[in-house]
Amino acid sequence: MSGRVLVNGSPSTTVSAFDRGLSYGDGLFETIRFVRGAAPLWSQHMDRLRESCVRLRLPLPDAETLRHEATVVIDGMEHAVVRITLTRGVGERGYALPQTPAPTRIVAGFDAPAMAGDAYAAGLRVRWCDTPLAAQPLLAGMKHLNRLEQVLARAEWSDPSIGEGLVCDADGHVISGTMTNLFAVLDGVLVTPALDRCGVAGVARAEILASRPEARVCGLSPTDLARASEVFLSSSVRGILPVQAVGDTVYVPGPVTRALQQHWRGLGFPMEQA
Amino acid sequence: MSGRVLVNGSPSTTVSAFDRGLSYGDGLFETIRFVRGAAPLWSQHMDRLRESCVRLRLPLPDAETLRHEATVVIDGMEHAVVRITLTRGVGERGYALPQTPAPTRIVAGFDAPAMAGDAYAAGLRVRWCDTPLAAQPLLAGMKHLNRLEQVLARAEWSDPSIGEGLVCDADGHVISGTMTNLFAVLDGVLVTPALDRCGVAGVARAEILASRPEARVCGLSPTDLARASEVFLSSSVRGILPVQAVGDTVYVPGPVTRALQQHWRGLGFPMEQA
Repeated sequence: MSGRVLVNGSPSTTVSAFDRGLSYGDGLFETIRFVRGAAPLWSQHMDRLRESCVRLRLPLPDAETLRHEATVVIDGMEHAVVRITLTRGVGERGYALPQTPAPTRIVAGFDAPAMAGDAYAAGLRVRWCDTPLAAQPLLAGMKHLNRLEQVLARAEWSDPSIGEGLVCDADGHVISGTMTNLFAVLDGVLVTPALDRCGVAGVARAEILASRPEARVCGLSPTDLARASEVFLSSSVRGILPVQAVGDTVYVPGPVTRALQQHWRGLGFPMEQA
Repeated sequence: MSGRVLVNGSPSTTVSAFDRGLSYGDGLFETIRFVRGAAPLWSQHMDRLRESCVRLRLPLPDAETLRHEATVVIDGMEHAVVRITLTRGVGERGYALPQTPAPTRIVAGFDAPAMAGDAYAAGLRVRWCDTPLAAQPLLAGMKHLNRLEQVLARAEWSDPSIGEGLVCDADGHVISGTMTNLFAVLDGVLVTPALDRCGVAGVARAEILASRPEARVCGLSPTDLARASEVFLSSSVRGILPVQAVGDTVYVPGPVTRALQQHWRGLGFPMEQA
């Protein structure tokens, strides 16, 4: 895996083997799409990072420092993704918080992932995952480093024609994709699952909700999803992705999906194929 | 934090910033107590590690290699703890399993932690934690690297006179301590909570269950615990720790606890103060 990296501001590709990010997954991350040096959703990423730092009692990072370091690691790249990882740093052995926290800040730049040619136009084929997400309100919504559930869910398929898997909670409510948030149009209303018990509250999801005040956050069952007139996925890295099928249920990208793709282009993101 | 470390067999104190152990908590660990170069519970640690590797689809490590590396990192130390961390290694960005897995193996040696003078004789004072453990049968029992719940639970107190915190699941069943397993004597029967939905199935717990076939694994409520005649904690690093109080409920270390401490000494562990 390549990529330019700054660790606590210095060029490095390694971190301490005693970092709590590795020992316990004790930290957070953001993956931020850049287009010619600009990150249209930067402030939303910083909002989520700050809010999650408060919840995990991590010292708040300096957004200006992060912005500068992001610019350094993607210098010269037209389409880039920056992963910012923030951990509680090196500590004594054991779960107790270090008395003098010294967080680790990893800022890494990568080429933006290529999407399949017609992903934005025709949409993705999606499957159901069997891996349920556990209900943990204390961690729900955050993009923290404890992501084994996503790893297990993503490991359920290897067919490259399947673009994403949908995960439910233990009660069978639809929550999200393994790496995307989920939206549907039900009876003409844009809806997305509530994420107060599990799941990651994506920055793209936040942007959609802010731009569509009429959208509803609610519980969503597979039966609801089956009768939706439109289904799409959101991702801060990939944008607005229509769903063309969930298992055997087929959808046609509709006007709400297309309008949000247009909104995304207006923010400055390329979705040329749509 | 000090300690001698081998990373994939070579002296090093760092790992790749792209390691999936750091990115997603995608891995496992064992903390193994050594006394003058011997690890009485070594084979049980290897059993758990192998079983968890199968569940997480991690390549099985070679136990002989691990044993050799453990010996190297504790060379000359009379009382030591070895932490073995096994991750899925460096991969492409994204949750999908690497097509060619190259696990990372970190073997680190530390001085064994000192216990408070009368911990083994008089026992620990213990509190209840508010942080619930989420129910996730796919991860339950394993000592994986997703430990934010334990970090949050341990962050609930800083009073050094409190030796451990007890955690429950979301339904209020008592599960364990933050870093220990829990046993109680109820109506003359040794019991310990079931760990098929959350919690870590400790190696010391496995040794106790193997040596006490009459012990029962079952659901345990705080009310049950309040009327127990004995309560103790088990840990592969710390051994058998009597509980002298859980909140306001006081216990006296009893014959079952003392017999298991004796068993622990018989295995070769020092618990001099007991």
